Amino acid sequence: MTVELISVGTEILMGSIVNTNAAFLSAGCASIGLSIYNQQVVGDNPDRLSDAINLALGRADTVIITGGLGPTEDDITMQTAASVMGKGLVEDAHTREHIGNVLKNSIYKDNITDNNWKQAMVPEGAIVIDNRNGTAPGIIMERGDKALILIPGPPNELEVMFRKDIKPYLMARNPKAIFSRTIKLCGIGESQAETKIIDLIDAQDNPTVATYAKTGEVQIRITASADTEDAAKELVKPVAKEIKSRFREDVYTVDADCNLEDVVVEMLDKKGLKIVTAESCTGGLLAGRLVNVSGASEVFSQGFVTYSNKAKRKALSVDKAILKKYGAVSKETAKEMAKGAILASDAEVGVSVTGVAGPEPSEGKPVGLVYIGCYYRDKVTVKEFMFRGNRQKIREQAVVMALDMVRRRIIEDDK
Amino acid sequence: MTVELISVGTEILMGSIVNTNAAFLSAGCASIGLSIYNQQVVGDNPDRLSDAINLALGRADTVIITGGLGPTEDDITMQTAASVMGKGLVEDAHTREHIGNVLKNSIYKDNITDNNWKQAMVPEGAIVIDNRNGTAPGIIMERGDKALILIPGPPNELEVMFRKDIKPYLMARNPKAIFSRTIKLCGIGESQAETKIIDLIDAQDNPTVATYAKTGEVQIRITASADTEDAAKELVKPVAKEIKSRFREDVYTVDADCNLEDVVVEMLDKKGLKIVTAESCTGGLLAGRLVNVSGASEVFSQGFVTYSNKAKRKALSVDKAILKKYGAVSKETAKEMAKGAILASDAEVGVSVTGVAGPEPSEGKPVGLVYIGCYYRDKVTVKEFMFRGNRQKIREQAVVMALDMVRRRIIEDDK
Repeated sequence: MTVELISVGTEILMGSIVNTNAAFLSAGCASIGLSIYNQQVVGDNPDRLSDAINLALGRADTVIITGGLGPTEDDITMQTAASVMGKGLVEDAHTREHIGNVLKNSIYKDNITDNNWKQAMVPEGAIVIDNRNGTAPGIIMERGDKALILIPGPPNELEVMFRKDIKPYLMARNPKAIFSRTIKLCGIGESQAETKIIDLIDAQDNPTVATYAKTGEVQIRITASADTEDAAKELVKPVAKEIKSRFREDVYTVDADCNLEDVVVEMLDKKGLKIVTAESCTGGLLAGRLVNVSGASEVFSQGFVTYSNKAKRKALSVDKAILKKYGAVSKETAKEMAKGAILASDAEVGVSVTGVAGPEPSEGKPVGLVYIGCYYRDKVTVKEFMFRGNRQKIREQAVVMALDMVRRRIIEDDK
Repeated sequence: MTVELISVGTEILMGSIVNTNAAFLSAGCASIGLSIYNQQVVGDNPDRLSDAINLALGRADTVIITGGLGPTEDDITMQTAASVMGKGLVEDAHTREHIGNVLKNSIYKDNITDNNWKQAMVPEGAIVIDNRNGTAPGIIMERGDKALILIPGPPNELEVMFRKDIKPYLMARNPKAIFSRTIKLCGIGESQAETKIIDLIDAQDNPTVATYAKTGEVQIRITASADTEDAAKELVKPVAKEIKSRFREDVYTVDADCNLEDVVVEMLDKKGLKIVTAESCTGGLLAGRLVNVSGASEVFSQGFVTYSNKAKRKALSVDKAILKKYGAVSKETAKEMAKGAILASDAEVGVSVTGVAGPEPSEGKPVGLVYIGCYYRDKVTVKEFMFRGNRQKIREQAVVMALDMVRRRIIEDDK
């Protein structure tokens, strides 16, 4: 079954708001195996919205429209959708009562204007869905095997309505089950990753295999459809196994909800290890990323941001002679920083980052040159990286590679 | 002149990523007075992309396509766009050289695969734009009075290319001159800000006035169109003056390219002051944000990430008795942290953050409660905040408010 989304709202077309509703609904549909091939955004304009609905209904089984269901003059979604479906609007007594109840408990109770009752007008014959967090109802209109669904735009109204009412409705309508698995890799480029599995990508039919690039990471998604979820899972399984065997330690997780920092924190936690960070060019972003994980306090108590040479000397006891001889951006300084952080804290794993984030070269060293050190079990390993991109991008890549280095070091030690 | 956007990417249709590029480009077009009436999202599928391009070119003067310009098999935007325009692909020698240069300086230098060179293939006769932050070039194809523009999807590549190359191109094609000015505010909510200038928003015609909310910030954009840029500027000027006088110190800049951290770093630099950070719940994000500014080393040498109580005691000399009596999330601890950071560094301004980022309450204190301390000239001021949102959002708001507190403290001291 295919679904299309239409988002209605001039504020999206003006770039005033990001269309997070589309991402929420798309992910929700994908999670129950519905394919979305097209999304559209239009403003609060009846002609353009009619065109968009007709186009979408011509292509997809189900069309979901969000936004433009408010009480004001420029909210034209209900009227327009009804007229595309050849229906008039009639007052829904239950919705009118619901609106009355909501308003009399609201801050607007002394200013209930006539246009509020407009939201009780629904297409004749439609399925009407109560709005748990507002006044505008949700609407489902069916015509043959097609369905047109209207959901109010405010995210807190939309999300709960999708979860509780629309999703079950869609699942009941969908004859096919879908299963997809995401394999997340780190420390390998997208084209290099693709080259390794090009035969699987080319052979794809069911399941399909696709790669996606994130900063410093690659994700591979395997998706199969079948009559039952179990059957779809069975189709995905051998392909996932083959891909994992080709990438081995480049794979950091097969859990779609899990990030690199989650994996690192979990690994440390399992081994009862604490980590300490010593950052120069990343300036706190590595520590900040570890603290993204809500259980981070189990493994992270302290971090050092030593941007100047003086701070490196004072907080991390980096030898003045080493800074002078090799410079702040050097293998030797990265080594000293990781060791110094260990000495100044109660952690067992120390990770250090020093580099040139730009925009100008520093100490005669090029923009993008970064050294990452990792201290664990009396041994410091340092890797040299040459990242490309702007200041922000270089720092983000350095953070990812630092996390990855810790991950690989612990795996290696386990062998 | 009307513009349409087409975003290409299965990951958008799957809801794996939010389409922030569309919001960025829409806002960018709006800022130069271009109208967008439709946006589309399609997957990496040649037929559906062809249909989307033909539909958009039928409606708009200019069509911008983003995404699907990577080196892999499923990146089909270049080939598809060229064939819609009736063009073949030819190798662009300059782009091939650029790709070679980028790759030989990258971490993938030992694994350059053949598919990388695919990105040097461009439509014959097209304007080719160098990618400052990557390998995929931007493309402009003109046909009569229509233009089809391709921009790579990674936000850091897209944003700089739009600003430096595409925006000037669009402005040159647009017969009307547009001038817009952005006033950036901090420490005030969007609805509160809107209420203060609702008369100006309602009266809008030319210039128009619009507010946009960012995390912890509000931006007000005033846009005028006229026959010349100077004439448009003159229309904007009195409105900008009026708005600035209404918000006074809430305004942190009127420079659209300037961020809050830029302002703070510049203020400190002008006064020859150094700043030190002491972070608990923000875990390094505040320091990381200061280091976003490329001249940060002039004012920032060191930061402390003290996540555990032990680290607060050890690195910042926070009194054990205070931690015991008031807890880590308290006015008193925030005060001690800011003072301790000053004592442990050579900075004159100390800023501390301690709070409950969630998802669980801590020490019996609610999620969202954050204390921010600011030490300057022998005085520590502490403010209590109650932020809403998830863990990430709470931490981001805390970082913004910490920067704003430093900014206001210095302004106050100047009086």
